[in-house]
Amino acid sequence: MPRYKLTIEYDGTNFVGWQSQAEGGSVQDALEAGFKGFCGEDIRVNGAGRTDAGVHALGQVAHVDLPTSVRTDTLRDAVNAHMRPHPVSIVEVEEVGDDFEARFSATRRHYLYRIVNRRAPLTLDRGQAWLVHKPLDADAMHAAAQVLVGKHDFTTFRSMQCQAKSPVKTLDELSVSRYGEEIEIIARARSFLHNQVRSLVGSLKLVGEGKWTARDLDRALKARDRAACGPVAPPDGLYLLKVDYD
Amino acid sequence: MPRYKLTIEYDGTNFVGWQSQAEGGSVQDALEAGFKGFCGEDIRVNGAGRTDAGVHALGQVAHVDLPTSVRTDTLRDAVNAHMRPHPVSIVEVEEVGDDFEARFSATRRHYLYRIVNRRAPLTLDRGQAWLVHKPLDADAMHAAAQVLVGKHDFTTFRSMQCQAKSPVKTLDELSVSRYGEEIEIIARARSFLHNQVRSLVGSLKLVGEGKWTARDLDRALKARDRAACGPVAPPDGLYLLKVDYD
Repeated sequence: MPRYKLTIEYDGTNFVGWQSQAEGGSVQDALEAGFKGFCGEDIRVNGAGRTDAGVHALGQVAHVDLPTSVRTDTLRDAVNAHMRPHPVSIVEVEEVGDDFEARFSATRRHYLYRIVNRRAPLTLDRGQAWLVHKPLDADAMHAAAQVLVGKHDFTTFRSMQCQAKSPVKTLDELSVSRYGEEIEIIARARSFLHNQVRSLVGSLKLVGEGKWTARDLDRALKARDRAACGPVAPPDGLYLLKVDYD
Repeated sequence: MPRYKLTIEYDGTNFVGWQSQAEGGSVQDALEAGFKGFCGEDIRVNGAGRTDAGVHALGQVAHVDLPTSVRTDTLRDAVNAHMRPHPVSIVEVEEVGDDFEARFSATRRHYLYRIVNRRAPLTLDRGQAWLVHKPLDADAMHAAAQVLVGKHDFTTFRSMQCQAKSPVKTLDELSVSRYGEEIEIIARARSFLHNQVRSLVGSLKLVGEGKWTARDLDRALKARDRAACGPVAPPDGLYLLKVDYD
């Protein structure tokens, strides 16, 4: 059975998340219905990462095994046609070997978190960024974020529901940049814990407001206690940007 | 009566356009209802330009005369609160002299037109860009666009419904740039005819596809005949970016 790697974009606002649900409504459900429409069979779509309800993707990756070989362009266009009107789109298809696993072969995941820092309500970006009214000091956020980079026990910054065996992860990058009224946070690691990026961003916001110092952030990390985390940032601003494979 | 200059952002997708309608549903109607909610009186919101249904704004400008003086930050926040849940937002308020007229004092209007040039359907940008499947040559579009810059009779590129007295306008800039799969067109002039930017973009797309040469575009301009225009581009990709005042 030929295996295909899919690069997928979606607006997560009205989805219940990536993962298939009995009641439907997930991104995976929309994709699997698209494949069923195309080839008449139940095809399992295996994603690189499970995004939560309201979280978006510009470069989610998944793999599928199909009963027969299909031209990659045809596959992309046909499955996309079957997924209308869902705001999910296969942007690229590539044939890969059967040792390729979207989840387990991934060597790096890149997330983007968008904050719009202003008083006025969002219009074109509604549901696609976190609106923060109080002026944030992005430079202070970036400086403080560096205490989180590296190999740490991230118990403070993971959801109580997280099923990962170990809370120890290596964060390769956590950078904060301001572009006018927009603040962009980039997080990069081999893998992340459940709610890790939103937990980190929620605590960095406290630094940006001047409520926390870099030292408070370091103390929260070292506490290894979920209760030490700042309020978790909403899903609206989070994007799975890209997944790397060797 | 103190006069205020408003800078306004909106997602035009579900509005019938800028201009007030008897049945409501316009951006102006949403703003006027917001002012009525705030000060209990009928306040006329005078815009710099009338955008069509589906056209967006990042920097529309309007002026209002209020019965009493109000702090600009209070005005912005209070009217915005009264406009929820409409996707329209006052981003800035400034007190101005009573010789300031949003429409007539404007010295330059800047429009942005966004094309996403790829096969895959739009997700996060749905309603906010024109999806064009065929590969477009943005360099050829830019080169051809230069024949339109300057003072010309733009009869070919204006709607039959256009009410401007003269079809002669001076186009100061028409530039086409590619950023990955996105093509951005910037148009700048003191004022535009009705549907002018969308008409120009529709014809430039024919150049990008290789169906028209720069010479065909020049011939269409010189025809001074609406029938010589390419199919008008959809409103989705059009943004009123900014209005300049001296």
